[in-house]
Amino acid sequence: MPTLRDLGEFEAIRWLNGARSRTGAGSMASGVIVGSGDDAAVLRLDAGTDLVATADAFVECRHYAPQHFTPREIGARLAVANLSDLAAMGARPRWALLSLGVRSTHAMEELVELQTGLVDTLAADGAALAGGNLVAVEGEEWLSLALFGETPRGRAWRRAGARPGDLIAVTGFPGRAGAGARLATRAEAGPQGPECRGLLDAWIRPTSRVNFALALARLEAVTAAIDLSDGFAGDLVHLCEASGVGVDLEEEAWSMDPLLEHAARILGVGAEALAFGPSDDYELLLAVAPDRRAACEEAAREHGVRLGFVGKATDRRGAIAWVDRGGRRRPFEGSGYDHFG
Amino acid sequence: MPTLRDLGEFEAIRWLNGARSRTGAGSMASGVIVGSGDDAAVLRLDAGTDLVATADAFVECRHYAPQHFTPREIGARLAVANLSDLAAMGARPRWALLSLGVRSTHAMEELVELQTGLVDTLAADGAALAGGNLVAVEGEEWLSLALFGETPRGRAWRRAGARPGDLIAVTGFPGRAGAGARLATRAEAGPQGPECRGLLDAWIRPTSRVNFALALARLEAVTAAIDLSDGFAGDLVHLCEASGVGVDLEEEAWSMDPLLEHAARILGVGAEALAFGPSDDYELLLAVAPDRRAACEEAAREHGVRLGFVGKATDRRGAIAWVDRGGRRRPFEGSGYDHFG
Repeated sequence: MPTLRDLGEFEAIRWLNGARSRTGAGSMASGVIVGSGDDAAVLRLDAGTDLVATADAFVECRHYAPQHFTPREIGARLAVANLSDLAAMGARPRWALLSLGVRSTHAMEELVELQTGLVDTLAADGAALAGGNLVAVEGEEWLSLALFGETPRGRAWRRAGARPGDLIAVTGFPGRAGAGARLATRAEAGPQGPECRGLLDAWIRPTSRVNFALALARLEAVTAAIDLSDGFAGDLVHLCEASGVGVDLEEEAWSMDPLLEHAARILGVGAEALAFGPSDDYELLLAVAPDRRAACEEAAREHGVRLGFVGKATDRRGAIAWVDRGGRRRPFEGSGYDHFG
Repeated sequence: MPTLRDLGEFEAIRWLNGARSRTGAGSMASGVIVGSGDDAAVLRLDAGTDLVATADAFVECRHYAPQHFTPREIGARLAVANLSDLAAMGARPRWALLSLGVRSTHAMEELVELQTGLVDTLAADGAALAGGNLVAVEGEEWLSLALFGETPRGRAWRRAGARPGDLIAVTGFPGRAGAGARLATRAEAGPQGPECRGLLDAWIRPTSRVNFALALARLEAVTAAIDLSDGFAGDLVHLCEASGVGVDLEEEAWSMDPLLEHAARILGVGAEALAFGPSDDYELLLAVAPDRRAACEEAAREHGVRLGFVGKATDRRGAIAWVDRGGRRRPFEGSGYDHFG
């Protein structure tokens, strides 16, 4: 397999662009006036929209371990990380720019595979790769994606906006990705069985919530939103801080995920620590107007998304608590992921 | 000085955002509906425009050597690298997202300085930093910037568009940045004197050509454009390939840069190799409609930009040649920069 050094920069870029146009993505995508091969991409938003833009990066061995991920899975997961940020704004993804730092010994076919995983995942949510750049590194490889989408003018969801009384809902099974990552790196007890497989999948092959978010946006149900990339506890704190509210989590409404209970036994930690601690699940944490609950549940069923209504926003600014059936409160504890901590 | 590890990720981001808002940049900038601190930025383009987007990245020791650049200069140079891509599209810069991979031992003040250099340089051309992300690395540090601007609809300059008969013009002194970099890394003969200082400046503190490009865009003079980031020869080939033309360079019109002649003597290479070979000068290479030459020269004088008319596009597709006063042709030789070659 030829490496980047064998091909040189410009031939490598030709390979990447060629692979992209064979998949039908790239310059023929909607709204792409000028795609790859110029100094910049030229893109045309729909009239009456705001541009919503995010950037997220993965670093080798920190965000993905080459022994656990295929190149396609690395690209797909970076796409989901960014798509998730747009989902959390209620935005429709449209275009992306990929910035790659790779070693010159990287096999070209594997880089094409990585791009294919990224392009296919973007395309499934209606977005196209419109350009990027490629530089050589000596040390760890990295990939940084900038993703652009649009919302009707003034309609982007924010972390701020939750009001006391709004319902707090979360998609999927928070904590699974983090538990999967911890299981995978425990060499002494390699993960076994379907429970572990489910957790590894949550880490390696996460799903974007873009289509569900767009359905909720059409319902005008969401008052605040954040995606779960640091962990449930950490991101709930971010949403509370931005909105100036507290949250009562209802003990009754929270059913512990059996897969996390399984992982907790293997890892020798509490299941709650896995459910609420550092984990990049790319699920959505939402504040919902109380009268829109049924409509949201209906949309969740239609999209095959698990949507748990787990609590309620309060006027106790910054206070997050568990509340039992009798109304008794105990503090909620947990913290999110810190890259440098 | 506290490091990123001392502060942790979220406090570090607070420092960066705080430094940005003190300079007046960030969320108060024109068209920024939602700035840092949410899942994505929300930005509002002017009506009737196209979005022009580019991404470029610098890797430690490859694009900047910490012993030659202050943190501010690193940030400023990355801004110019991206601004130059928008200048080459005739686009007005508006917003940027910065993706940073830094070691946890990085001093926080130096990271703030780097951001300040970047933000001040963007601001001088009317653009604001609207968000980004921060990840930890073990090896080389890197910084990747995505920059967005706008042009009136359908009016972005491209590399394609030069027609036989169009004049070929170039700003500044191509080759100086590359010569400066080569002088700086020659430890055995540290660069001395004002000539070397001028060459080091071209490498360390390049100037953006955005304002001059916008003036030319108003003149409707430019038929094709590219920025010089690989070197004059390599980028001229790119422009010729994209436009399907050749170029005759006029020997008479080209006066060799005395600073490059000085560097050539020190480095023991030909001055032409420095002028035309690999060099990231962030100057503009333009094809200009012949009847707009005088107007362009007038704009160059107004903006204090050196603009050399060095040749003419021909219908000899892909052929680049020197032509002397008598019309005799000799081949032009040179090639651009290859990250992996």
